[in-house]
Amino acid sequence: MKLIAFDADDTLWVNEPNYVDVKEKLCELLAHYVGQDVLSERFYDAQMRNLHLFGYGAKSFMLSMIETAIELTNGAITGAEIQQIINVSRRLLDFPIDVLDGIPEVLETLSKDFDLMVLTKGDLFDQESKIARSGLGRYFKHVEIVSEKNEQAYQRVLERYRVQPADFIMIGNSLKSDILPVVHIGGRAIHIPYDVTWIHERVADEQLVGKSFTTLASARELLGLFGKITEQA
Amino acid sequence: MKLIAFDADDTLWVNEPNYVDVKEKLCELLAHYVGQDVLSERFYDAQMRNLHLFGYGAKSFMLSMIETAIELTNGAITGAEIQQIINVSRRLLDFPIDVLDGIPEVLETLSKDFDLMVLTKGDLFDQESKIARSGLGRYFKHVEIVSEKNEQAYQRVLERYRVQPADFIMIGNSLKSDILPVVHIGGRAIHIPYDVTWIHERVADEQLVGKSFTTLASARELLGLFGKITEQA
Repeated sequence: MKLIAFDADDTLWVNEPNYVDVKEKLCELLAHYVGQDVLSERFYDAQMRNLHLFGYGAKSFMLSMIETAIELTNGAITGAEIQQIINVSRRLLDFPIDVLDGIPEVLETLSKDFDLMVLTKGDLFDQESKIARSGLGRYFKHVEIVSEKNEQAYQRVLERYRVQPADFIMIGNSLKSDILPVVHIGGRAIHIPYDVTWIHERVADEQLVGKSFTTLASARELLGLFGKITEQA
Repeated sequence: MKLIAFDADDTLWVNEPNYVDVKEKLCELLAHYVGQDVLSERFYDAQMRNLHLFGYGAKSFMLSMIETAIELTNGAITGAEIQQIINVSRRLLDFPIDVLDGIPEVLETLSKDFDLMVLTKGDLFDQESKIARSGLGRYFKHVEIVSEKNEQAYQRVLERYRVQPADFIMIGNSLKSDILPVVHIGGRAIHIPYDVTWIHERVADEQLVGKSFTTLASARELLGLFGKITEQA
């Protein structure tokens, strides 16, 4: 039995635009202290500096944003303004989930023939909450939330479920997290690019040389692709 | 084959005293604004209010503490002081792990006859980091980090590993999270109390009426207990 895993953020539902939107609101909030470009740059630096301690997710975002605001104002930012940063960012933890076009149909169809898994990285609590809010949980036999999606993490998941790499298909929007590590361990990967990609998830074209994976324009195209796979089986 | 699961914080290693220590330092830091009792009380209120959004763990602790400090100072706290809150709390994410007495011997021995699992709740990234820092990872065949340790969570874990409740043994310091839900689903639970228990994890004596579980004074006593179980088998 093949195991088909879906990335969550920006594969099953809209995510990154919420982060972009919150970042824009925070830039407005702090505009009397600092320009947008400097804030964005220093915020990204803080996120990368804190990644080994905080990991991914909305709470890490909030803490790194607070640190950046304090740093860029030399500590002059007020408590009340920091509370505003928290209030604006808090919606990252409970925004209404906007499921991407075609996803429910695709999951409904594929779940009849395959074991489906959500395989996502980030904050456990945050991701579980998004799955619950999405209403898509019923299509998935398994949910795996890992702290980083690298080759070791994929290998651990396949061992846990006793699935051979050749029987594993990963679908996602991030070349870095969803496609390349899966190709490297001998699995099959399907890339469905999303409009907005966090800079940390981007990869250079050279890294794609010699790698074999399928790119689709939208989730709907999965139906045609898997229709063929099911016929072959 | 029986599956033996260990809670992590204050079962395998010292955890809560680090939180108590950080809380004391933060009380000193904010002493010119507010007394310790009021700060503690309002901080606990903030943690409970935010639990459904933030979950457990060090990052949630930091965010709730920042909110409490802003609230109790009516926004007068400075950015520099909030950075101090973050700096003091940050050690919750990288304190050196102090493994509890007897644990390595117990794990070394039990891992020869049983599949061992770490089964803990909290922040995924934070808990994985503690397991890595503890050096105990090699004794565990499985690691499960869940957002809440209730009956449903235990049932999901047992289903995933195809283990019957009668073949499952949970060892931990929290009556609320490690003992009662396991007893309720028909598993066996071994309680090893720890000196310090977070108020959120305490249970009233009435809840223990009619419940059957074993209490040990220390992890070392597991060796005698499991020696008997292995002989019976």
